[in-house]
Parts: sequence; C-alpha cells; structure tokens
Amino acid sequence: MKKDVRQINLLPENLPNRWYNIIPDLPEPLPAPKGDMTAMGKTMIKECLSQEFSRENWIEIPEELQETYQQIGRPRPIFRAANLERFLDTPAELYYKAEGLFSPTGSHKINTAVAQAYYAKRQGFERLVTETGAGQWGTALSCAARITGLEATVYWVRAVYKWKEARRDFMKLYGAEVFASPSKNTETGRKLLKEDSEHPGSLAIAISEGMEDALSDDKAAYVLGSVLNHVLLHQTIIGLECRKQLEAIDRYPDIVVSCIGGGSNFGGIALPFLGDVLKEGKKTRFVAAQTEAAPNLQGEYRYDNADYSGITPRLKMYTLGHQKDMPPVYGDGLRYHGCSPILSLLRNKGYIDTVAYPIDEKYVFEAARIFLSREGFLPAPESAYSIAAAIDEAKECKESGETKIILFNVSGHGFMDMEGYRQVLQI
Amino acid sequence: MKKDVRQINLLPENLPNRWYNIIPDLPEPLPAPKGDMTAMGKTMIKECLSQEFSRENWIEIPEELQETYQQIGRPRPIFRAANLERFLDTPAELYYKAEGLFSPTGSHKINTAVAQAYYAKRQGFERLVTETGAGQWGTALSCAARITGLEATVYWVRAVYKWKEARRDFMKLYGAEVFASPSKNTETGRKLLKEDSEHPGSLAIAISEGMEDALSDDKAAYVLGSVLNHVLLHQTIIGLECRKQLEAIDRYPDIVVSCIGGGSNFGGIALPFLGDVLKEGKKTRFVAAQTEAAPNLQGEYRYDNADYSGITPRLKMYTLGHQKDMPPVYGDGLRYHGCSPILSLLRNKGYIDTVAYPIDEKYVFEAARIFLSREGFLPAPESAYSIAAAIDEAKECKESGETKIILFNVSGHGFMDMEGYRQVLQI
Repeated sequence: MKKDVRQINLLPENLPNRWYNIIPDLPEPLPAPKGDMTAMGKTMIKECLSQEFSRENWIEIPEELQETYQQIGRPRPIFRAANLERFLDTPAELYYKAEGLFSPTGSHKINTAVAQAYYAKRQGFERLVTETGAGQWGTALSCAARITGLEATVYWVRAVYKWKEARRDFMKLYGAEVFASPSKNTETGRKLLKEDSEHPGSLAIAISEGMEDALSDDKAAYVLGSVLNHVLLHQTIIGLECRKQLEAIDRYPDIVVSCIGGGSNFGGIALPFLGDVLKEGKKTRFVAAQTEAAPNLQGEYRYDNADYSGITPRLKMYTLGHQKDMPPVYGDGLRYHGCSPILSLLRNKGYIDTVAYPIDEKYVFEAARIFLSREGFLPAPESAYSIAAAIDEAKECKESGETKIILFNVSGHGFMDMEGYRQVLQI
Repeated sequence: MKKDVRQINLLPENLPNRWYNIIPDLPEPLPAPKGDMTAMGKTMIKECLSQEFSRENWIEIPEELQETYQQIGRPRPIFRAANLERFLDTPAELYYKAEGLFSPTGSHKINTAVAQAYYAKRQGFERLVTETGAGQWGTALSCAARITGLEATVYWVRAVYKWKEARRDFMKLYGAEVFASPSKNTETGRKLLKEDSEHPGSLAIAISEGMEDALSDDKAAYVLGSVLNHVLLHQTIIGLECRKQLEAIDRYPDIVVSCIGGGSNFGGIALPFLGDVLKEGKKTRFVAAQTEAAPNLQGEYRYDNADYSGITPRLKMYTLGHQKDMPPVYGDGLRYHGCSPILSLLRNKGYIDTVAYPIDEKYVFEAARIFLSREGFLPAPESAYSIAAAIDEAKECKESGETKIILFNVSGHGFMDMEGYRQVLQI
C-alpha cells in the first residue's frame, strides 16, 4: 500500500514568531468595553491590556516566549483522520489539530498561560490569580506560573472542584493554591455561602472572586483564560501553525470547526483563516459547536458583564445573561454565559455558524468514541463537541458528494475526564 | 535573550523506516530459549516469531505501519531540559525523549502494539490476548487492536486493576475485554483463586492466563509487551529517532538513561546507541533505573520462565525467580522478575550499569516533581525513576565539572497516575 500523509508538522525552528491580531481587519470597529475599568486597570498585566486594544496586525512573540512555546510542545502536529474518513465513507478530507493531546496540561490553554506569565513576570508581579471551570485553564495557569517562577491562586467552580480530584492534585503538584468557589476568601464568596453553604458556583462567580483577591494584593495580577482579545490573540498560534502545515501539503480548509465556550480555542484555530476571508475573500465556512446548556452564540448580542458580580466592565457580546443558571454538563469548559466580543461581532455579521448539542451529551460522547476507535486519541469532553460537528459536516459531504477539506481542533485530551465517558456511555 | 534550542524534532516524512536488530552485533551469540516451545509456537504471530530469531541487522517497517506510526504521533520530539539544567546548576546538557507525553495511550508501549496488531491482522488472527501490570501495555494493546480492527482481551494483575479505574475504563472504551487476574477464565487462575479469592496476582500469573486463553482459540494470538527480542526490536524506533534528532544539533549522548522492568523502553532508547558502542567503539554509558522492589538486573543470570506457571520456554536472563513475591510500588511497570535476554547479556558483559531506588518511592516522586516544576510535563511513576537517575547523573557532572550529554527517556505520562503522587508526596 502506498504510504499516505497521516501527520503534518513543522520543525520547531519554523514555529510562527508573531501572533495575528484580527481587530484592524474586522468589518466594523470592535465596540469598546463600557463601565468602570478601574478594577481591570489595576489587576491586569500592562502588556496584555495594551494588546487588548492594539491596532497592529501582527504582534511579535518575544524570543524567550518562543523558547517556552517549544518547551510546551509547539509546534503541534495536524493529523489526517484517514481511518475516520474511511469509516464515514465520506469524500471529505478530515484534518485535526492535536492541541490538547500534545500539551503538558492537557489543552490549548497553556498557549496564553505562558504568555501571560511571561509578561507578568517582566512587569514585576509575583502571583497570578484566576478562575477555572472545567479545570483546564486552572491547570495551564498553574503550570505556566510554576515554570516561570511565579505563585498561582485558582478559584475553581465548586461543582467541578468536588469531583475532579486528579486535576485538583495536578494543580497542587504545580504548587498552586486552589480554592472551591464560592470561597470564604472574598466578599462575593462569603455572601453566596451564607445563602447556600454548598453553593455550586459558576465561572462568573469565580471571576468575581479572583478579581477581588487580586485587587487586595499589589503583587498579584488577575488573568483570564478566554473571552478577551489578548487571550484570543495568543491562541492564534494554533491557526497560524495550521495554515503553514496545510500549505505544506497544498491544502486550504473549506470548513473550520471547533467547540466554543468563551471562544479561546475556537478563535485560536479560526481567526487566521477568518482574516483570510475578510482580507482575501476566501470562502471558508466556520462552525462553532456548543452545548444546549449554554448556547451563548444563540443568545442576545448586547453589552453584558463577564463576571457574576459586575466588577468587570461590560463587553458587547452574545450572552445568555451574566447571572444565568446553566445545567451542568461534562463539557464544562463550554458552560459560560458569554462569548468573545471579536467572535460575537463576526457571528453577528454572519461569518460564524453555530450548532448546539443536547444536554445529555450522548451524541457528542458517541462521536468521541467513534473518533477514538479509528484515530486512537482520547478527546476531552469539550473536544467531543468539535468532533461531533466535524463528523456531521463530513456526513453532509457524503450526501452532497463534495470533496471538502475540513479542519477541526481537538483542543483537549480526556485522560483526566474518564468519569464523563463512564457515566454518559455507561462503559 | 538569544533563542535557544528547546525542542528537536524530525518531520513525519523523515521517520526512520527500519528497525535496528542488535542480535548479529552482540559480543557473543544470544543464548537460545530452552524448553517446550509448543505453546509459544501456537499462539505467537509468525512474523514476530521470525523477527525474534532474525539475524538481519535492519528490518523494514512496512509502509502501512509507517503510516500508523505517523498516526500515533511519531516522530516524537526530544526536549532540552534547559530549565532543569539551570535549577541543578549542572554543566551537563539534559535531553529527554517525550515518548509517553506524545502517545495516544500514554506510553511507548503503543510502538510495538501497533506492529504486532498489524502482523496479526495480516496473518488472519481476529483477537489479541495479553497481560498487563501497570496498565500501560494493556491500554496500548487495546488501542492498537481497535484501530487495526481486531478484538482484544486483557488479563490485568488484580492488585492494580482494582484501583486504576480510569485506565480500566479507557481499555473498555477501546472495546477491550478486561479481566482481573487471577480470573475464573483459566486453570491457572481458578487454582490460585481457590487458595485466595482476592489473590492480588502478578505479571507472571497474568501471562500464564493469557497464554492459556489464547491456546484455546485458533483465531487468537498471544502478544507480549516487553522482554522478548521482537518487542525490543519494534521499540528501537525510539533510539533511532533520537540519534537522528541529536545528529541534527551535532550532539551524541555520553550517557543514556532509562527505567527498566522487562526492558522495552530501556531497550528502545538504548539499543541503537549500544550498537554504536559494539560496532564503532563509542564510549557511551548506559544507566538502568530500577526499583528495589524488583531489582532484576541485580538478580542471577540464568535460565528462567517468563511466566508464573512455566508455560513459556525458559530464557537466559537476569531474574529474581519467576515465582518471586515483589512488594507493590506505584511504578508497577518496573515490577517484573526478569529482564530481556538481550539486555541481560549486555549487562552481563558490563555494558549496562544499574541503580535501584527505595521502595517508598519518595526519592523518585520528588525527582518527578522537580522535573515537572521546571519542564512542565507530568511523568508516569515508572518514568520518575528515569528522571531520578538522570538528575543523579547531572549532579555527578556538577561535582566533576564535566559537560556531558545526558539523554533520558520519559516513557510514560502521569495523567492517569495522580494517586501515586497524592500518596507518596502527600499533596
């Protein structure tokens, strides 16, 4: 049998050395945040704040950080899911980016975590404070802080904190302080605990707590793992690598698929290609896979807070409301009320399609099992949504007979998420 | 700051396309197995049996299997552990091969699993039967069988089966049948269960059970994940990649370090370099890291069985005795009474040094934490031994002031082994 391309990669020395900032290329100006910027201004890393509003198209990745990108396993390969194609009997070509599977902490989150840690250290901060939902961001931030020589404090949504024991220990192994949120450390937390001593928490509440904590300590920076422009900027390394890798085999994606919560992994893979659509008139379609538990892209496009208590400024974004109750799902990383302002604007202008999968998660976990059985790799629950949507697109190609190039992101691995598979698939 | 090399890799198209067979280069003929070969002859894959005794120096990797190697993430990068070097303040250069961290099932075991599955399928087998200790081999085999389109049955040492719930579900997710061993399926198992209904089992017992099972089914092949020559042959892909990668930065290892149980990961990284020592007079030193729970290289060099019941032929190897009781350790993959005949011969001739670490595992887990805190990656308990030995060598270089090149293998990741860290480090 003729040897086919199954994996496409770059050499480490050919890692992209700039991030792509889509803001100047957007079809209209990005609406500015509204409300009190004091808290953000005080706790945010200056370089990140400057990147948040930058009008430069390309932002250099500092050389030391390029080394760190190599250290955390970048560049990461694209795989051609040839076995999956055969199983689906589709004329489409399926390519997936192995973000989570080749990451030290299990997901793409490390890409911005090391960048933020780098800038924080340079500015003289000694501690990074953050929130986490599924736990992937908390782990990434703990790792980044540790290898950069900073302390880390993580407020973790209690509902998830309680059962993800291994991931909790993983953060602690990196030396991080980890609190179940709401916690007794903050005003916001104490108030909610008074109402319910076992309050399950939410990402928005954990953000409020983290910001309160950071505001009380001059040496602490507050960092976020999604939604904001500079976070998506750092994640564009994913799509920039993909573009180079696909170029090497003379391919360009007709469809780019990824799951979406706050938008960091979706933006990471999609923005460089969205830029091509805006600047060069490429016809690529973008599909965001969501959960019906939090279909924020199907919400309202309006100003809303990123956090529960309203400490953060309000952002113009698709939102379900910042105090919205959302049912628990194993793909907890997708369970957030709002979506990145950049992606929201592009969604509003018709550049991004969306699909939301049922709350019982049977369909997406079954898709993950189909993927695993052909390609071998175990995806995170969040990435199962990405896979489900890619498979759906490949099936449509079978119907229509179209030979489309589908690129999807497997943003996290599932080695620490077996509980979800066990429960949903009854293995 | 000047950008340094932190990661060295090959492009997928430059993956080595042959395995290295050291047998013809050994300083004296490898002693032949003794005793009844009937069971082995009946249940083993023919191509593997032929490779077991091959006198060819190089064995072609079939093109289809080269594709599968790409599919499972080969080539895998070497990382320069520059942060760890700085922390240790050593003049040595430390390079580690990220075998486990870039593997779909968490370790190097997949390298031979997919090869054996490929040959088994070609021969018309429909099911693969095996044993597993730590669970890494069982997972790899389950994955390889699934993606190749075969069934898998795994006999898993009960003492480990009981607490590694996530890894058990992982194998089942790949569609494998998984039994705690001793089991009721076999004569060997039933006999031992009569003595003790909660018998903890051992790798040697599980091998006996697996062979019995395979002997009762014409469509089943029995496969092993370590010890045998053909298994080490398939694993030489690790060292062959390393040699190419280090060549690219004009380096050659003075010391090669890895942990050793049956010998598959140690042999995988070391054999190509041991070949250079034998053929070209290179002066590289080889260090095998063991547990005092099973310091088989410090046992006797004599003929012994690979399994508990004596179904397998006897192999000339360093052994603690095939019915030896060995205390449990978290690095369970190292807990085996015997060592590969090839490595045993080389050990006997003075080519391999050995060090054994205490049973409480505090030293090795602490070494893993030091590694994690600087390099970011979470090693498997077995790989913690490799890291401990590499750090010890780097410290000696600090004493002596020697700028040695140390290459070590991180053969497994620890995402599913947090329990060991929790207990040993009391996090």
